[in-house]
Amino acid sequence: MSNIDVDDHSLISSARVEGTAVYDRRAEKIGTIHSVMIDKVSGQVRFAILSFGGIFGIGARVYPLPWALLDYDPKLRGYSLSVTREDVEAAPYMALDKADRPHEVPEPAYRHWDEYL
Amino acid sequence: MSNIDVDDHSLISSARVEGTAVYDRRAEKIGTIHSVMIDKVSGQVRFAILSFGGIFGIGARVYPLPWALLDYDPKLRGYSLSVTREDVEAAPYMALDKADRPHEVPEPAYRHWDEYL
Repeated sequence: MSNIDVDDHSLISSARVEGTAVYDRRAEKIGTIHSVMIDKVSGQVRFAILSFGGIFGIGARVYPLPWALLDYDPKLRGYSLSVTREDVEAAPYMALDKADRPHEVPEPAYRHWDEYL
Repeated sequence: MSNIDVDDHSLISSARVEGTAVYDRRAEKIGTIHSVMIDKVSGQVRFAILSFGGIFGIGARVYPLPWALLDYDPKLRGYSLSVTREDVEAAPYMALDKADRPHEVPEPAYRHWDEYL
């Protein structure tokens, strides 16, 4: 599990974000951050990709969460969500390719989480 | 080496950016992308971290490049820079920690590349 600096540094490496634990609003660990999805032109991170864990492989499901949905909790040493695991399971997901890389976010994901932000 | 989609998809995974080759303005490969540095609050990628390669380890030098400095070249299947390797070598660098993660970008790096953008 990543051990993210909790000082006031404003930047964090993708190498630290990836692998960081994610907890739902009940403070139950539901998975880890697989990677982030970046807008190619602007460099804006649009989604953090949540993996529930288990074995990666072709077609494994991962879930794009808006970056703004992640709230880092120093006590948990992970990201705390204001939603439940069930909310995530009901959200649009992506599939990992042969290289364990998520495919393009399905268009519906761009709107799904709006009500939670 | 990563094989980045070159279609019109607007998003790319950090898992695809990491490991992608970087070429200088002479189209000479100078390294690969180690990771990206993300603004914790906004999610904006501020820098892509260039590694000249070789063995990682504590203190290994990596170079933060503004995201906007990277221009993906489908022919090269990598990022093309408008600057030279020497320009990068003369720029502020970061050191990798025990986990091969770059330390906070040194403040001067925020301004060093402004003239190139």
